[in-house]
Amino acid sequence: MNPEGWQILESCTLFKNPHLEVLKETVVLPGETRRREWTVVRRKKAVVIAPMTEAGRFVLIHQCRIPVRKCLWEFPAGQVDQSFEPDHALLRETAVRELEEETGYKLADAGTLIYLGHYYSSQGFSDETPYLFLAKPVVPTGGGHRPETNESILESKTFSTAELSAMIADSVIQDANTLACFARLTAKSLLL
Amino acid sequence: MNPEGWQILESCTLFKNPHLEVLKETVVLPGETRRREWTVVRRKKAVVIAPMTEAGRFVLIHQCRIPVRKCLWEFPAGQVDQSFEPDHALLRETAVRELEEETGYKLADAGTLIYLGHYYSSQGFSDETPYLFLAKPVVPTGGGHRPETNESILESKTFSTAELSAMIADSVIQDANTLACFARLTAKSLLL
Repeated sequence: MNPEGWQILESCTLFKNPHLEVLKETVVLPGETRRREWTVVRRKKAVVIAPMTEAGRFVLIHQCRIPVRKCLWEFPAGQVDQSFEPDHALLRETAVRELEEETGYKLADAGTLIYLGHYYSSQGFSDETPYLFLAKPVVPTGGGHRPETNESILESKTFSTAELSAMIADSVIQDANTLACFARLTAKSLLL
Repeated sequence: MNPEGWQILESCTLFKNPHLEVLKETVVLPGETRRREWTVVRRKKAVVIAPMTEAGRFVLIHQCRIPVRKCLWEFPAGQVDQSFEPDHALLRETAVRELEEETGYKLADAGTLIYLGHYYSSQGFSDETPYLFLAKPVVPTGGGHRPETNESILESKTFSTAELSAMIADSVIQDANTLACFARLTAKSLLL
């Protein structure tokens, strides 16, 4: 990846496993001549889904997160496994699948998946990029949630916008995915 | 770190440099007996500051971010270098210093630093934890911004809440720090 004005002089792998790659990069920024060395963690792209029912309630999942030693209430999310540069169709397909697997809800037949833009989870050290979607309305599949076995989702539950907002104010919601969705939904006036 | 109910059976370093540590962890989750292996990236704690002027305008910085090959408008932020388990006094001290270094604004003598809670930037793979603050009111130092030489801050500028909200709606704001602050400020009814 080498957009206009950016000179990527070197990009060398320091560590790699199936979950991430650590690189040492030597870069000249646009408009500069100085060489900068930086440690970058490369990650798969991701999708996050804010699932809204017909009644305007949001579906959240309660998931154990090993890196932070906590079980958190969050919007469903997942990585795009097939490509490091997924096109929009693949992002939407992944969003629809993750929604159904993780929550036990699915996009209604007449429902829409509204793109809310991407964000960077930690732009100072990683290229990780979640793509945000509002799915509305969602309806129960009847089959409950069927997460992959390596996931640890305890339950899914619906919350009103007022409840979600109170959980954000009180720091019950602690993950960037859910906070970023809420910020975009608020700024786009998409909350009921 | 081993909170109640979590069994951390093994935590072994796969890679380490001054910016991050990659660990392989073997964990038993609360209420389970199954052993899970997980890759975790350990990072320093961080602070993010939403600086608000007396007139209710927000100060943002325009910063080049090597991992994503972009210059982004964001709230000032910085890592806590002195400790992996900083107390609240050290977080506040770091927030006050980063605000002044990165923006050229400082907390007014009669100003307050309001804690907005923490969040996790990417709880699926990292323990990175930014702590969020609202600084109000802030006033120009007169000396401009004085970022550290390894940073690449192009300028700082003030925006109204309406302008910030439009930048979020239009995905001009792309970083988790600023989106998370905006979500907490909205949910706590702290926006003017």
